Amino acid sequence: MVDTADHVAFRDHLVESGWLRRTSVDGVVGRTAPFVAVERGIDAVVTRAGADQDATVLRFPPLFPRESYLRTDYLASFPNLSGSIHTFEGTDRDAVALLAQQAAGEDWGLSLVTTDLMLVSASCHPSYELFAGQLESDAVRLDIEGWCFRREPSPDPARAQAFRQREFVFIGTPDGAQAHRDEWVTRGLAVMAELGLPAVSDVANDPFFGRAGRMLAANQIEEVLKIELLVPLYGADSPGTALVSSNCHRDHFGVNFGITTPDGEIAHTACVGFGIERIVVGLVRHHGPRIEDWPMPVREALGL
Amino acid sequence: MVDTADHVAFRDHLVESGWLRRTSVDGVVGRTAPFVAVERGIDAVVTRAGADQDATVLRFPPLFPRESYLRTDYLASFPNLSGSIHTFEGTDRDAVALLAQQAAGEDWGLSLVTTDLMLVSASCHPSYELFAGQLESDAVRLDIEGWCFRREPSPDPARAQAFRQREFVFIGTPDGAQAHRDEWVTRGLAVMAELGLPAVSDVANDPFFGRAGRMLAANQIEEVLKIELLVPLYGADSPGTALVSSNCHRDHFGVNFGITTPDGEIAHTACVGFGIERIVVGLVRHHGPRIEDWPMPVREALGL
Repeated sequence: MVDTADHVAFRDHLVESGWLRRTSVDGVVGRTAPFVAVERGIDAVVTRAGADQDATVLRFPPLFPRESYLRTDYLASFPNLSGSIHTFEGTDRDAVALLAQQAAGEDWGLSLVTTDLMLVSASCHPSYELFAGQLESDAVRLDIEGWCFRREPSPDPARAQAFRQREFVFIGTPDGAQAHRDEWVTRGLAVMAELGLPAVSDVANDPFFGRAGRMLAANQIEEVLKIELLVPLYGADSPGTALVSSNCHRDHFGVNFGITTPDGEIAHTACVGFGIERIVVGLVRHHGPRIEDWPMPVREALGL
Repeated sequence: MVDTADHVAFRDHLVESGWLRRTSVDGVVGRTAPFVAVERGIDAVVTRAGADQDATVLRFPPLFPRESYLRTDYLASFPNLSGSIHTFEGTDRDAVALLAQQAAGEDWGLSLVTTDLMLVSASCHPSYELFAGQLESDAVRLDIEGWCFRREPSPDPARAQAFRQREFVFIGTPDGAQAHRDEWVTRGLAVMAELGLPAVSDVANDPFFGRAGRMLAANQIEEVLKIELLVPLYGADSPGTALVSSNCHRDHFGVNFGITTPDGEIAHTACVGFGIERIVVGLVRHHGPRIEDWPMPVREALGL
């Protein structure tokens, strides 16, 4: 078990060595020049790893339609990690009342209205609604990157409340989805090796919420749906933190978004996600805070 | 006055020519490969325009501390554009009730709790809390880019609900802030010229909310605090849409965040913001949907 003190020490190390700036909320940080330079390098490395996929580039904002969010079933599985967007609607007088409530230290958020938007729960989630209906091909491949939100306030620099996932997504036949998941375990391990990060693959389970969630988690392990690439970031976190994960969703999104293959079967989907911030802090953990001191092959891979 | 039909026609043109994908919510779109390529080019052009500023790079997530948001006074000025982040906290039983509420078509957002986070209202807003206290220099310069949220659902591709602003921010003396604002009007016009966009500068006023807001807007014009660089996007929107704006905040953020100069005076601040998505759609509007047809100097500036 990793102690919070380990997280605080690593975060402070990143701040003191000029990689991060803290804000007044845990898990919400400012990235500085070296961080941004390394994340650009990682972007290029992952782009090369998927260059032969001929994937369609899609980039979404950090928020997406509430209707799509509901179709992912994220509300049932992770209500406690979700981010719902609310705003003010009302008259001049309502706004005066809102400000008075805020000035009095009351919970003025309760006076806002629920919008039709949610924060993005996983970077592929906004994409599925675009493919509702019959696919034109047995194998649609997407290249997605975007901001995700998970309500997990923590000092751990590898567990931000907002972070980016670069994903390669497959939508098509069941065999294709399974193959995508497996192939990207291999490719992900190659990316980790290129970056000099000691990764091992392992069957994963997500922290599904509540009693029903425990069954979902057990099922996820039993069916070997999600494989994570783990890299040790803390002495005691063996075998490590997931920097990459490759996930077969079976027909989950196909059913919920009404996506079918050209022959009319429910589409299966799979995705691999690279955690950009986690890879950056993994590099600092394993190669040190000075990029000049990093192994030359790693610097060359990153173009630094 | 521009008609909504003009917005719809331009959006559809961008979709049909492969620049955008729509989602089920207005003002929330997916960007495709050419869009991403051009925004990278714009990033490089703006970086060159500010290369001599020796600005500190800071990149924030799309959300920031509610406490910082409140200090910006955005809630008083633009409550209707704000995005507040809410989440679920509760027991297994509470989660079951939440899902039942959702299944019944009720407003389940009202059962969530208000978090300590807000969507970023302007890309510089998260930065000021980092400089609370006495500055070490008379002139702090920041290079910021990030996602902003404005609750303005519209089909206009130049008015997304989520969009990115690249900003150069000044924090320091009153004269320095004024000079920064003025200098970046000139630099911004040079960037627009480099991109072949016919921009004119004009004194701007923001759509402050309500009756008090009308006074704030009148004051903003009278004091010539904000200058916008306008580029026509629609035949009838003369003189155009603001692609860049340069803004002197006087002592507003200095007072509210408790920032002082080395000699103990309240710091003044200023910022220039480049609207990334607006510049991309401006380029398509003025040079056409095929990058191959764009003027060679523009393509060279963008590295395309």
